[in-house]
Amino acid sequence: MFKVGINGFGTIGRRVASAVTKQDDMKLVGVADISPSWKIRSAINTPIFYGLREYGLNEKEQFETIKKIFTDAKIEPKGTILDLINETDLIVDCTPKKVGLANRDRLYSRKNDLHVLFQGGEKASIANVTFNAYINYKDAIGERFIRIPSCNTTGMLRYLNIVQSVSDVKKVVVNLTRRGADPPEPRSGPINDYIPTGIPSHHVEDVISADSRLDGKLITYGVIVPITLMHMHSVIAFGSFPSREKIINAFHEDPRMVVIGGKEVPTAAQVMEANERKNLYQIAILEKTVHLHDDILLFSVYVHQEADVVPENLDAIRASLGYEDSQDSIERTNRSLNLKDTKKKLESCFPVC
Amino acid sequence: MFKVGINGFGTIGRRVASAVTKQDDMKLVGVADISPSWKIRSAINTPIFYGLREYGLNEKEQFETIKKIFTDAKIEPKGTILDLINETDLIVDCTPKKVGLANRDRLYSRKNDLHVLFQGGEKASIANVTFNAYINYKDAIGERFIRIPSCNTTGMLRYLNIVQSVSDVKKVVVNLTRRGADPPEPRSGPINDYIPTGIPSHHVEDVISADSRLDGKLITYGVIVPITLMHMHSVIAFGSFPSREKIINAFHEDPRMVVIGGKEVPTAAQVMEANERKNLYQIAILEKTVHLHDDILLFSVYVHQEADVVPENLDAIRASLGYEDSQDSIERTNRSLNLKDTKKKLESCFPVC
Amino acid sequence: MFKVGINGFGTIGRRVASAVTKQDDMKLVGVADISPSWKIRSAINTPIFYGLREYGLNEKEQFETIKKIFTDAKIEPKGTILDLINETDLIVDCTPKKVGLANRDRLYSRKNDLHVLFQGGEKASIANVTFNAYINYKDAIGERFIRIPSCNTTGMLRYLNIVQSVSDVKKVVVNLTRRGADPPEPRSGPINDYIPTGIPSHHVEDVISADSRLDGKLITYGVIVPITLMHMHSVIAFGSFPSREKIINAFHEDPRMVVIGGKEVPTAAQVMEANERKNLYQIAILEKTVHLHDDILLFSVYVHQEADVVPENLDAIRASLGYEDSQDSIERTNRSLNLKDTKKKLESCFPVC
Amino acid sequence: MFKVGINGFGTIGRRVASAVTKQDDMKLVGVADISPSWKIRSAINTPIFYGLREYGLNEKEQFETIKKIFTDAKIEPKGTILDLINETDLIVDCTPKKVGLANRDRLYSRKNDLHVLFQGGEKASIANVTFNAYINYKDAIGERFIRIPSCNTTGMLRYLNIVQSVSDVKKVVVNLTRRGADPPEPRSGPINDYIPTGIPSHHVEDVISADSRLDGKLITYGVIVPITLMHMHSVIAFGSFPSREKIINAFHEDPRMVVIGGKEVPTAAQVMEANERKNLYQIAILEKTVHLHDDILLFSVYVHQEADVVPENLDAIRASLGYEDSQDSIERTNRSLNLKDTKKKLESCFPVC
Repeated sequence: MFKVGINGFGTIGRRVASAVTKQDDMKLVGVADISPSWKIRSAINTPIFYGLREYGLNEKEQFETIKKIFTDAKIEPKGTILDLINETDLIVDCTPKKVGLANRDRLYSRKNDLHVLFQGGEKASIANVTFNAYINYKDAIGERFIRIPSCNTTGMLRYLNIVQSVSDVKKVVVNLTRRGADPPEPRSGPINDYIPTGIPSHHVEDVISADSRLDGKLITYGVIVPITLMHMHSVIAFGSFPSREKIINAFHEDPRMVVIGGKEVPTAAQVMEANERKNLYQIAILEKTVHLHDDILLFSVYVHQEADVVPENLDAIRASLGYEDSQDSIERTNRSLNLKDTKKKLESCFPVC
Repeated sequence: MFKVGINGFGTIGRRVASAVTKQDDMKLVGVADISPSWKIRSAINTPIFYGLREYGLNEKEQFETIKKIFTDAKIEPKGTILDLINETDLIVDCTPKKVGLANRDRLYSRKNDLHVLFQGGEKASIANVTFNAYINYKDAIGERFIRIPSCNTTGMLRYLNIVQSVSDVKKVVVNLTRRGADPPEPRSGPINDYIPTGIPSHHVEDVISADSRLDGKLITYGVIVPITLMHMHSVIAFGSFPSREKIINAFHEDPRMVVIGGKEVPTAAQVMEANERKNLYQIAILEKTVHLHDDILLFSVYVHQEADVVPENLDAIRASLGYEDSQDSIERTNRSLNLKDTKKKLESCFPVC
Repeated sequence: MFKVGINGFGTIGRRVASAVTKQDDMKLVGVADISPSWKIRSAINTPIFYGLREYGLNEKEQFETIKKIFTDAKIEPKGTILDLINETDLIVDCTPKKVGLANRDRLYSRKNDLHVLFQGGEKASIANVTFNAYINYKDAIGERFIRIPSCNTTGMLRYLNIVQSVSDVKKVVVNLTRRGADPPEPRSGPINDYIPTGIPSHHVEDVISADSRLDGKLITYGVIVPITLMHMHSVIAFGSFPSREKIINAFHEDPRMVVIGGKEVPTAAQVMEANERKNLYQIAILEKTVHLHDDILLFSVYVHQEADVVPENLDAIRASLGYEDSQDSIERTNRSLNLKDTKKKLESCFPVC
Repeated sequence: MFKVGINGFGTIGRRVASAVTKQDDMKLVGVADISPSWKIRSAINTPIFYGLREYGLNEKEQFETIKKIFTDAKIEPKGTILDLINETDLIVDCTPKKVGLANRDRLYSRKNDLHVLFQGGEKASIANVTFNAYINYKDAIGERFIRIPSCNTTGMLRYLNIVQSVSDVKKVVVNLTRRGADPPEPRSGPINDYIPTGIPSHHVEDVISADSRLDGKLITYGVIVPITLMHMHSVIAFGSFPSREKIINAFHEDPRMVVIGGKEVPTAAQVMEANERKNLYQIAILEKTVHLHDDILLFSVYVHQEADVVPENLDAIRASLGYEDSQDSIERTNRSLNLKDTKKKLESCFPVC
């Protein structure tokens, strides 16, 4: 059993923690956070640990103060973040952007054989591998530090891997229409506005760090809109493509994609409503938007920012801790999250099972 | 076993169907809808029936046509809405506003001993009882037609019943800040706007039809805002009240309420994120907003429009089909939906279990 | 003086009416609408006429009834829509989608020499010319019926005309991120959702009806988002292009474009706030998004849906009524609306004058 | 001529600057800001000055650096903030929250006879008077430092002053539904969420600092929603009231209120669209929401957060610089901004002139 701890119980931390409990080769030792907010309070039935705000001399004093804040708020933590580290093989660091780097150097470095996963808020340089289960699982085997890129990069890696597997791609432009905030982040906007982001956006570098075939071929840019539900990518690829049907079939065959059919294209909220769960781990390809025009291929997808990186985290845990059979890891993950290839699913259900 | 069918598989129909399957004294015979849209397609593992758009002479022909549309869309319905009616004791009508009335007179009237629940989109006159499990379960026992009032009315009935049980209320003003649409209704607004609704709003009449104690005392009005997540009610009551603590405790004791504590008041999205499920069956009282100022009591609540009527539908099924023990029905419903009194819950979890 | 009347006083009607009053060769005879709503009530200092809901036998009776509704609401209309027609050379029809066609056949046909402009809600077949001042003014001279295409089509015609004038364009993909509603239309959504629209969208046909050079080269599609402020277009063109600087300069030279520079790309709301007026008649090119990558040109623009068709309506009035000097018409329009080439403007002001 | 400078060219600064240019007894010497962003760039035809980020030893060096940033961005400032101060009688400080206090002590203190207006982002203690033209103009005459309270407080002061002038008010509860951000602040939320704010909110203290009659009578609280357009207040007052008509008439008589009538209550966006200008200086009373029920008075208003404080700033300039005739100041301000009593307006126009 791989002993796993989660540091940071926000959008990603909560979901990875829950998914870890569904793996029969992993044990969730506990989750850590720095304050007894509604986030950590809702960590029901899970051992709670508590962290430090800064690393330095008065560590003991800080720990006492923070522990008191927890107990005053009627939460009895099981120990400190150091205890959590001591009891685990691997920490999934889900702290806010840039905190992961400080944690690596000041906290995780205290235990020589600790393995750590970092999330996409950190720079690629934080780890040796920017991970995608289909593309570079082998490179990650045994690595102490692995980075799971962001939801958007993970989405692009998945669908562009499939497109490349059946086509000769010359150029790809991805127009990212980005959600403004995760649902429980009420202080982020925009309201009634577009926020254009740079061109090319940072995603290019991020995608290429995991899939070098796209070097020099990919342009990404985007605009942030007043939506918390999903990202939406519009993809325009140039090259030589097989038939539309063959491309759609390739998407169908990947359990981490879901092809959304039907006469009308469902909206993002309709896809989420049709989904019994709160999370959509798959990238949702909108079948009606797959369009071939000579040497141009267009298609649009929904990316559920809160969930698509969860399967990747599970596989990366196994790779980091030395589990060599990538195919088996992927299948275990998929089975535990109820991800199946959608071709079969289309016979009995729609749009999402 | 009460044999139950659902007519109309939208926001409410989907949730009542799912909840019926969790009752050990009920059997879901099937769900009916009129077209093979994404809504009915996501009714996985449930027998699907199909309806008619209009009732009249060419019924047989219509049924053939509609059946073909379903089978062309690769959905094999188990039968027509008439078959569903024949196989059930009770239909929960969850069709759109005003369709219920047409159904009552032209469809449900065909089977003499059929019982039917209608939802709050229909007028009170559609049934003899506008139902609330705590207030008038007894009046509904054996009634063929029962109406479950809307999410907002159900919410007001619940929390005003509790306030009245511990206070002498002279006047109540409820300011409803209303969600603009349910999430999968993308064609409804507003975007970046307030839509003030009439004063007093139709809710007054609706609340009084189930709780006559409030006759002449209640004023309700509201404004629609660009939110799909929840309604929010701000309540201002005048009268004689016990201590703030006693009022909060009274809310705690009802498993269909949840008192949301903490130093900061969580936003509606934070409450939903803390909730493992998609649905919040309870009315969420925001503890920090409970405020006593002489003879004025103020408090604010969140009402999850998609879910709070679900427990009422379950109890009304039992009452309609002659189950006399209201307390036991309520407890069965609460248990099946994992609703417990929140006082106990606060010891181990927060804000919502 | 060209005598002009406006039929329909909504978003476009109000703005064209106001712009007509600023032309020294036009006179606004009056504006007509069918009910004394807030829209027509705000037509200050303008003669108000009133229309018919249906055309038929009891016309006189209908007129009496509608007149009474106006006078009861304390608005004294100057006459009926027939009076307005009799007193004008040209009607700008700004009634809702599809009403224009009924008006053409049943109302405007009553006066043989009446000229009429229709808006983009009507199909291209309603008129002989789908108009753009730069592209086909000559074809519209003397035409009785002219159609001004929609805001999005007008935007595309303008900027693609400029791109084509300096480049050899092989293919163009336009990704339309569309506002969900005009601000005063509170019943339209979406809230917190994406509504993908068909691919290719109807705009292709519409653009080609005015600019046949793009036949077979243009693909458009889009997604509707919860914004009322603007449309945003992301343009991906393939072909042979001059330098980035030359393309930007070409945009600068057109007074109906405005190049928005600066270190940070302003959001749509920032552009509107920087604009002293409520209307942005120009298409706003976001300078930082103009990106050349080998044979691919990318750029993004804001299109103010309420305003960009206003200058086109003014020029089309002149063309329809026989004014032959297109260049002079365009300059009169631009001067009256304070539109200047932005190169000069950049010396003294920014981002919008 | 009162010589006025503006420090801080954001939402309020821009509007006060523009309004000052419309007064025949004031001269706008110039506007100052600290960076050449789109905000200051759109200050067309106005002398631009530049400020300091911090006050201290290297002032000269800082000034040189900042000047270079401006000139590099092709803006030639006329001088520093110190020059602006030297050339003016009064500075309207419109810098962000808390910056005003630092400015008072380190910057404005350098000129002994400088008068300064601060805005509602500063605490009441920054000045001797929290100003409302109708309530305490006399107290402000000659005062060097005056504070104009925030948009919401200004709104409450105005309409509660009128209600008190015709009624005996015992208690007032104001439920503030608050816009999430001003339009050009895209980084503020919420998106699809409610953010409840404390009860009672800080507005109580603020209102009472200008109108002590409300001490002990006022409760305010609120919720922030995904709207940038307006605030909306729902007012519930207890006491003895004259007839509904008399209350409405009292609102009509104040040119800084506008009574919005009509059969349907217009939405906030419809009121703004009916308004030819971008700004609504008046508080908009929604006539249909004025409701009397025994000893309870209810009504709802829209507050345009960007504009309602502008007339107060103009009057406060005059009071501060010793102009004693409050009635004449108010009339000059109203005339210059085209504010008239709405009773007369209703004869010819609606809802807003």
